[in-house]
Amino acid sequence: MQDQVIENLIEQFRTLPGVGYKTAQRYAYSVIEGTTERAERFSCAIKEAKEKIGFCKVCGNFTDQEVCPICQKRNRQIVCVVKDPKDVLSMEKVKTYDGVYHVLFGTISPLEHRGPDQIRIKELLSRVQTDKVVEVIVATNPDVEGEATAMYIAKILSPLGVKVTRLAQGIAMGSDLEYADEVTLSKALEARREIN
Amino acid sequence: MQDQVIENLIEQFRTLPGVGYKTAQRYAYSVIEGTTERAERFSCAIKEAKEKIGFCKVCGNFTDQEVCPICQKRNRQIVCVVKDPKDVLSMEKVKTYDGVYHVLFGTISPLEHRGPDQIRIKELLSRVQTDKVVEVIVATNPDVEGEATAMYIAKILSPLGVKVTRLAQGIAMGSDLEYADEVTLSKALEARREIN
Repeated sequence: MQDQVIENLIEQFRTLPGVGYKTAQRYAYSVIEGTTERAERFSCAIKEAKEKIGFCKVCGNFTDQEVCPICQKRNRQIVCVVKDPKDVLSMEKVKTYDGVYHVLFGTISPLEHRGPDQIRIKELLSRVQTDKVVEVIVATNPDVEGEATAMYIAKILSPLGVKVTRLAQGIAMGSDLEYADEVTLSKALEARREIN
Repeated sequence: MQDQVIENLIEQFRTLPGVGYKTAQRYAYSVIEGTTERAERFSCAIKEAKEKIGFCKVCGNFTDQEVCPICQKRNRQIVCVVKDPKDVLSMEKVKTYDGVYHVLFGTISPLEHRGPDQIRIKELLSRVQTDKVVEVIVATNPDVEGEATAMYIAKILSPLGVKVTRLAQGIAMGSDLEYADEVTLSKALEARREIN
């Protein structure tokens, strides 16, 4: 026995990733118990985000400007290719990276009928040519689709004389050999390096 | 390096209980990636909740009506007293309870300078008198403040001939004796019942 208005708010919170009914209820009550100003700010932030945020015309990432802050300020000759905007956040944890990004919004997946034309490969190609890109780092996930996409990008960019690299695969820092799967181990062995 | 609009949305999600930066970021991206209609609905639900939800004039719980659905439809002669609106949700899991509620919005706490006048005790007293209440079940938490509040309610209501009861304390169903603390065990022993 609950009011429709409260139930509706709970329903909205349930649309967030990983949020079940109990968590949504907790969120809803926190909003109801909070101040009107807080609810106002929250409500506006959601609306504003959808109204103002579009895609960066260079890298395709979300931004409220025509060109995102990263594309504006950083070295455009090094481009890191990622699957989606969330991956940019992950890569940005590497503070030393000074290049820019290219968001594909998907990977090549024959199973889901997604070919190179359904993702932003064409835009990558034209960027590489106009921005005199020196290196393209393909940072798609190390799964079948990510690998296929990386291979495809390497194939179309290599003739242009651009260096195409891939993130190294191997044992994660702080992990345990005991729990590493055989594919990871064999990749790590293959890419072994001499200790100087 | 992130846009102000996105950062602001993340900040808003961070005000929810138990939400850290990474979770807030995930929520924010889910909104940005979603449809405009979804953002619109979400934004409205938050605004509407604060605009339309007030307090039930009988029990004090959140409602968008003058009198909440529970107070409208159920037996007003049995009143379950709880600390806050969330506790009503918990009690409502007991499907067999047919009485109504009274939300105190706090408990008596000398440490936090909160006496009986700062919580909704006066309203409880007048309700008991006008609604011919037969039983008041005090369902405050089994901690120092909850106990003090229960004692106080019993003290002021008993002279009116109302039965004042307290939720039973004992071993939780499905739990293990091994992990029960001594206070719980001694309460359980004290309140032991004959097996028929």
